[in-house]
Amino acid sequence: MLYSDNLSISPENHLLIGSHDAVALAREFGTPLYVLDEDTMRRNCRKYRDLLRENYPGQSLALFASKALCTLHTARITAEEGLGADAVSGGEIYTLHAAGFPMEKVFFHGNNKTLEEIALAMDCGTGYFVVDNAEELRRVNAAARARNKVQPILFRVKPGIDCHTHEYIKTGQIDSKFGVALETGEAFEIHKTAAALPNVRVEGVHCHIGSQIFEIDPFCEAVRRVMALIASLRDSLGMEARILNLGGGIGIRYGTQDDPPPLADYICQVTAAIQEEARRLGLSLPLLVLEPGRAIVGPAGVTLYTVGSVKNIPGVRTYVAVDGGMTDNPRYILYGARHPALVANRAGDPPVRAVTIAGKCCESGDLIAEGMPLQAVQPGDILAVLVTGAYNYSMASNYNRLPRPAMIALREDEKKLIVRRESYEDIIRNDIL
Amino acid sequence: MLYSDNLSISPENHLLIGSHDAVALAREFGTPLYVLDEDTMRRNCRKYRDLLRENYPGQSLALFASKALCTLHTARITAEEGLGADAVSGGEIYTLHAAGFPMEKVFFHGNNKTLEEIALAMDCGTGYFVVDNAEELRRVNAAARARNKVQPILFRVKPGIDCHTHEYIKTGQIDSKFGVALETGEAFEIHKTAAALPNVRVEGVHCHIGSQIFEIDPFCEAVRRVMALIASLRDSLGMEARILNLGGGIGIRYGTQDDPPPLADYICQVTAAIQEEARRLGLSLPLLVLEPGRAIVGPAGVTLYTVGSVKNIPGVRTYVAVDGGMTDNPRYILYGARHPALVANRAGDPPVRAVTIAGKCCESGDLIAEGMPLQAVQPGDILAVLVTGAYNYSMASNYNRLPRPAMIALREDEKKLIVRRESYEDIIRNDIL
Repeated sequence: MLYSDNLSISPENHLLIGSHDAVALAREFGTPLYVLDEDTMRRNCRKYRDLLRENYPGQSLALFASKALCTLHTARITAEEGLGADAVSGGEIYTLHAAGFPMEKVFFHGNNKTLEEIALAMDCGTGYFVVDNAEELRRVNAAARARNKVQPILFRVKPGIDCHTHEYIKTGQIDSKFGVALETGEAFEIHKTAAALPNVRVEGVHCHIGSQIFEIDPFCEAVRRVMALIASLRDSLGMEARILNLGGGIGIRYGTQDDPPPLADYICQVTAAIQEEARRLGLSLPLLVLEPGRAIVGPAGVTLYTVGSVKNIPGVRTYVAVDGGMTDNPRYILYGARHPALVANRAGDPPVRAVTIAGKCCESGDLIAEGMPLQAVQPGDILAVLVTGAYNYSMASNYNRLPRPAMIALREDEKKLIVRRESYEDIIRNDIL
Repeated sequence: MLYSDNLSISPENHLLIGSHDAVALAREFGTPLYVLDEDTMRRNCRKYRDLLRENYPGQSLALFASKALCTLHTARITAEEGLGADAVSGGEIYTLHAAGFPMEKVFFHGNNKTLEEIALAMDCGTGYFVVDNAEELRRVNAAARARNKVQPILFRVKPGIDCHTHEYIKTGQIDSKFGVALETGEAFEIHKTAAALPNVRVEGVHCHIGSQIFEIDPFCEAVRRVMALIASLRDSLGMEARILNLGGGIGIRYGTQDDPPPLADYICQVTAAIQEEARRLGLSLPLLVLEPGRAIVGPAGVTLYTVGSVKNIPGVRTYVAVDGGMTDNPRYILYGARHPALVANRAGDPPVRAVTIAGKCCESGDLIAEGMPLQAVQPGDILAVLVTGAYNYSMASNYNRLPRPAMIALREDEKKLIVRRESYEDIIRNDIL
């Protein structure tokens, strides 16, 4: 049994991604190679869209969180599947715009947007600015005034929820660099300030409690707190916040250690909480916005490596070194993340021992996994690391001046290069001697 | 009192880097900006070179560890100062070669060199391959045979020293992905294998016990163990290993919490240990090679940011958000590294409170520092983060599609752009729609 519906084993005992032989892909495109199963990504987009429609009588929109994976091609897929996009920087806005994305469906996030980014996003026609703080509110209003327009905004509100996830990726508690606090009255105050500004219009409220969360209750609690804020904005300021943007954060399964709730349960319970609160507070149903990133694209990705050496240290451990590492997947060194792995050219064999998968960087922490049960392995084998669609390419670096890998997208019988492999020439392109 | 000799305060209360006003540099080149004080880098190169000459009667060569900072310009500086270079990848070899570096003074490291990298390095005339394992030995010998040459090599030996530093950057213990173990006899065996291969010639032995080490004793112990290996290679195999490459690793001072020994003490004690062992074992003095990276370039770097927002959360903490972050300096999120910081346009003022310096990435872990005493600060101020010459630019990423900053080099009265700021066009350059 493999980890995901789209993975199986060929008669030659090779890993199949959809209908494509992973070993043949490695041979054709070289390694390391990011493989995006576009069919899986599209299926996940539709799943979000359809579950929202089925469970929620109000309007809804799922946004793909670009920070998980932002390329021209994935922006195009997102648009074709009818999703909006969440962007967090000028670079992501630029990419979406260059891909012909419908910018009116883009929400622009970030705790510290620069003046240049605000100008770029406004000039590209970005639909909504998710404003982080009072200084930024002033800047967004000024930029809109200079363009003689009224910019739709939402504020990022910290609902005061301290959920269980990695310290680095939880964001809903009061001690966060993101947003304005609900419990101190800060959130209410900034809405009051905005109400008096002529070039911004508050369209809704945004919150995001963190990433890789495996409980649904914190999301429902966030709904209750934010809906209460929306009611108080109506009652005290006459402000109609018609959008409820709940951010992302529902966890995905990286391996057997993870047991996330079914997506349908999450959407069913969250939408029920919204309807209940709307009824109770006499609010019309808000336009519900969700921002999945990892959940859309994480399971769609596989990284293929070539094994360079196998170092068995008797009584200690076995290091399997691959031709990539923390440069293309920094998630182990950053978070201790666990991605499943298998030998693609021996995919159906049972694991024979637990190994450490090491990268090729000059750094001891450059590991992909420890204690990973793996098939028999030798130099020249193709190693597949799974569930790498999110926060791998987007976090990649050129540490040790390693070129970043190519990325291909797979559909039923088609395969397409969507990001060219970096060349050494690319690496010195901006150097001046 | 500032952190480094080359930093001072101007009459306008601005930070001076050498004779250059940091605030004026930020204005001229934009932020974030990597500033390399070339005079400091050159001074550190000479310090190593001179201390080796003064303390060691044998031949010596300091190599600059490219992985700390690899650009065409720094390669040129390294060459001009008479140092060799340590390279760990095809990308670093390519950069050195493109800068006109004397390749015979290059040592090529890495735990998993690919066939393509081995070919490139050999075709560029790289002086020495530091071979990691038996599989790689076979490959290097084959590549040399195909070119009808004999490649000088050293083996990377794990001397079995478990020193006190961050888990991610210690490498000398037996449980390491790097090299062959001394204590198990593996190191001796691989030398025996090499002695029988016609297209490689063992020129010496290499070890590297880790990074940011604040004790000298582990280095002296490494000397004793490796010199004993050299003697046994002579006695048992008739092999003359004339180079002793001790790697890098002596710590530098990032802030008041660090108290590294003076470089002179380190070199004095290490060279004394070599001489004593040589006498004792009847060996001629080896060519001593050291590989400083951080020690050469770390203190030469300052990163300048613009403050975007100051978020004071009463009773919790104050977040100061800058226009860069983990994308240009991942050392806090990776290692909890402490880089000193100050407000460049108020450099002489006393700190007024401890703050958290946050980046602009959509990730809670995106911090530059916590508990950092800082002057009064407000949006628009220029924040200087110190000792960022090593492992900042070299580890930078485009996470959130943030362009990597420009880098300038300063000499007495001169300033020069040495790495252009990345453009959004650069970021989508390899994307295919």
